[in-house]
Amino acid sequence: MPKPTNNMLGLAVTPANVMQIPGLNTLGVSMARVDFGPGGLNPPHTHPRGTEILFVLYGELDVGFITTANVLVSMTIKQGDIFTFPKGLVHFQINNGKGPAAAIAAFDSQNPGVQAIAATLFAAMPPVSDSALSKAFQISNQEVDAIKSKLA
Amino acid sequence: MPKPTNNMLGLAVTPANVMQIPGLNTLGVSMARVDFGPGGLNPPHTHPRGTEILFVLYGELDVGFITTANVLVSMTIKQGDIFTFPKGLVHFQINNGKGPAAAIAAFDSQNPGVQAIAATLFAAMPPVSDSALSKAFQISNQEVDAIKSKLA
Amino acid sequence: MPKPTNNMLGLAVTPANVMQIPGLNTLGVSMARVDFGPGGLNPPHTHPRGTEILFVLYGELDVGFITTANVLVSMTIKQGDIFTFPKGLVHFQINNGKGPAAAIAAFDSQNPGVQAIAATLFAAMPPVSDSALSKAFQISNQEVDAIKSKLA
Amino acid sequence: MPKPTNNMLGLAVTPANVMQIPGLNTLGVSMARVDFGPGGLNPPHTHPRGTEILFVLYGELDVGFITTANVLVSMTIKQGDIFTFPKGLVHFQINNGKGPAAAIAAFDSQNPGVQAIAATLFAAMPPVSDSALSKAFQISNQEVDAIKSKLA
Amino acid sequence: MPKPTNNMLGLAVTPANVMQIPGLNTLGVSMARVDFGPGGLNPPHTHPRGTEILFVLYGELDVGFITTANVLVSMTIKQGDIFTFPKGLVHFQINNGKGPAAAIAAFDSQNPGVQAIAATLFAAMPPVSDSALSKAFQISNQEVDAIKSKLA
Amino acid sequence: MPKPTNNMLGLAVTPANVMQIPGLNTLGVSMARVDFGPGGLNPPHTHPRGTEILFVLYGELDVGFITTANVLVSMTIKQGDIFTFPKGLVHFQINNGKGPAAAIAAFDSQNPGVQAIAATLFAAMPPVSDSALSKAFQISNQEVDAIKSKLA
Repeated sequence: MPKPTNNMLGLAVTPANVMQIPGLNTLGVSMARVDFGPGGLNPPHTHPRGTEILFVLYGELDVGFITTANVLVSMTIKQGDIFTFPKGLVHFQINNGKGPAAAIAAFDSQNPGVQAIAATLFAAMPPVSDSALSKAFQISNQEVDAIKSKLA
Repeated sequence: MPKPTNNMLGLAVTPANVMQIPGLNTLGVSMARVDFGPGGLNPPHTHPRGTEILFVLYGELDVGFITTANVLVSMTIKQGDIFTFPKGLVHFQINNGKGPAAAIAAFDSQNPGVQAIAATLFAAMPPVSDSALSKAFQISNQEVDAIKSKLA
Repeated sequence: MPKPTNNMLGLAVTPANVMQIPGLNTLGVSMARVDFGPGGLNPPHTHPRGTEILFVLYGELDVGFITTANVLVSMTIKQGDIFTFPKGLVHFQINNGKGPAAAIAAFDSQNPGVQAIAATLFAAMPPVSDSALSKAFQISNQEVDAIKSKLA
Repeated sequence: MPKPTNNMLGLAVTPANVMQIPGLNTLGVSMARVDFGPGGLNPPHTHPRGTEILFVLYGELDVGFITTANVLVSMTIKQGDIFTFPKGLVHFQINNGKGPAAAIAAFDSQNPGVQAIAATLFAAMPPVSDSALSKAFQISNQEVDAIKSKLA
Repeated sequence: MPKPTNNMLGLAVTPANVMQIPGLNTLGVSMARVDFGPGGLNPPHTHPRGTEILFVLYGELDVGFITTANVLVSMTIKQGDIFTFPKGLVHFQINNGKGPAAAIAAFDSQNPGVQAIAATLFAAMPPVSDSALSKAFQISNQEVDAIKSKLA
Repeated sequence: MPKPTNNMLGLAVTPANVMQIPGLNTLGVSMARVDFGPGGLNPPHTHPRGTEILFVLYGELDVGFITTANVLVSMTIKQGDIFTFPKGLVHFQINNGKGPAAAIAAFDSQNPGVQAIAATLFAAMPPVSDSALSKAFQISNQEVDAIKSKLA
């Protein structure tokens, strides 16, 4: 069942991994449903412990991952298409289509984990220091703080 | 031997993995030397295919990684100390000491790979779209472009 | 897109593994879509090289697997439900609902393989000997031959 | 020591895995001795969690496994010969020789498990439904029940 | 078939791994037959890439392995008994019985490898230096050379 | 910090594995510092559960391992060089330089284990029998006892 996506990102993720379903323990698989409003974004993130394979239920998605050679591999996929995001690599999905979109993600791990990059860096607790973020992104401390307050 | 660190980040990384040493193939180990100038930063990054264990040759380092529960685990380590960064998790090291610092990193993979988060997102080729980055970090397209031009 | 299921089993399987998509090689994941007519059966089979996780797109399915202690673990699952079949264990799905049903299966292998038990035993080439099958199932050679000719 | 094989299949299996020998836990190996009377059959079965390598102690055996391409790979092996059954694939051994036969099986798992196909399908508890078995083997419900009662 | 054991150690090893049987490649199992004359010794050795499980065909054997805590775990095993040597640990078998003995060894690797410790140290080519061996075993260079010439 | 090396071997090993640092559990990496006096020897040993990669902090070392084909692979390495010892193979390091030497070893296991060959064979408790060692090394029982008493 679709979940409401009327939030900042236009996104709803419904995970089904070992945190929700303890019986998956040791089985090495899990799933998630991802719903996108029009313009919805599943922002750049990694799964540190799993490769993902994505099936589009309906709508269309612009998807991409970046390799360790810093090459963006991207594609537009539609209902019934699949796409794969190799373990640990930064990736994202955007619904640039006109209507809503939804997809089923499956993982080769019962506990793939997720690190949404922006939130990992700007909303961790305790916080990552302004100076590290300022230097990494080449922005001012004020700009770092602005992002931190928006993502808090 | 230390490498010069007079660059934007105050950092020099000398990798010794299967890309540099083909004989490491199938052996499942590699190393890197990391030199830091005063204030030097090894910016937030992941190794998608390896856990890292770090030994401080000299100087002191503020090190940290962020868990998939978005908790920052950090510590100050000095000459002779070791610290571990679990596979795939975002982590960083900063030399907040007065002099230079250096460390030896070892990995449980001959090809751990590295994704420096800021460069992965803002300097990949082809580029990640402004709209995805703008929405993910909650900044304007102009701010995205400013970061892109600095990290290019 | 659903495929026609007007065949002996009321079943259509659309695999998406490394045999169809060479780029999945080394990635350790694959998928398949399974369509069922009313009464359709995905007959008892194993995946020798993969655990399966199944998501119901629509309809309802009676699913089950048999453990190595010879216990049948079964359940009725409906649209949006998931179920897991551990690596190598005999399992099956039946559409006992009134309308058609469809599901997405994902695997922790790019090449899970499939052995449909009845076809593996009674339709392999060269054939498994009548005497082995007769003794295993405690049926006559004539009954073995009858099954063989139907499954050929 | 040989075990008596005066049963329906002419077969005696003496396992030595982690269920019998707890000390094998985590060691990743196990063994079994298999004794065959004349005409004895180790009926089609799988080991969901292990590859098997078989050594003939005495006598001769017709052995075979079926690949996921539904090809029967078979051979006659004698005292001192070895043969391998890849993980998860359906396989069997028959003593078509004149006297008794015996073999040592070894596995790359302390807990390979076994699913004797006929018993898995027709003697599981709770039972697999007649309709699923009838459709899978293209036999009548009466024939299904006859097999069930013989294998119970 | 037993092999002659009228040599220095009273030992004959008949391996059946991927070096002898290329078809074992990727299957992760192998075997060896070991024949012992009375007093025969399979001298201290390791298998760097495999755990071993041993089945006594006939005779009796004193077997042992040394743990990484330097504890000798030993036992006398007879016809039909099994014993396990964990991966990489130094182990040995001695036939202290009155007649000959034979055993079947199985491994969880198609290529377990073997390092007979004395030959590895004193008969490698090029040779390990006298000074290293002298210091390691606390014997004189002459004693090192005497062992080297006997094991050459 | 260097440790004193005024002992029989001219050697000091400071391990940092899961025995010393419980938090390394499941992380699959560990380290050790090795200090050598002039002429110091890290005697022939194996790590049954880990591949080692070695970085020279200062000084120079003659290092070598023996393959399962009984070939010695050796090299002289100096400050800043690295060398790798494959899992389970017998290897050693000697400081044939004029001053002290030190190195950092890293492993692809939190618990690689170590078996110093001479001590494993001649100082295990309970002891390995004289007859096995005498026959393996082709030395007399008296010579075996002499080594045992020196390594006790």
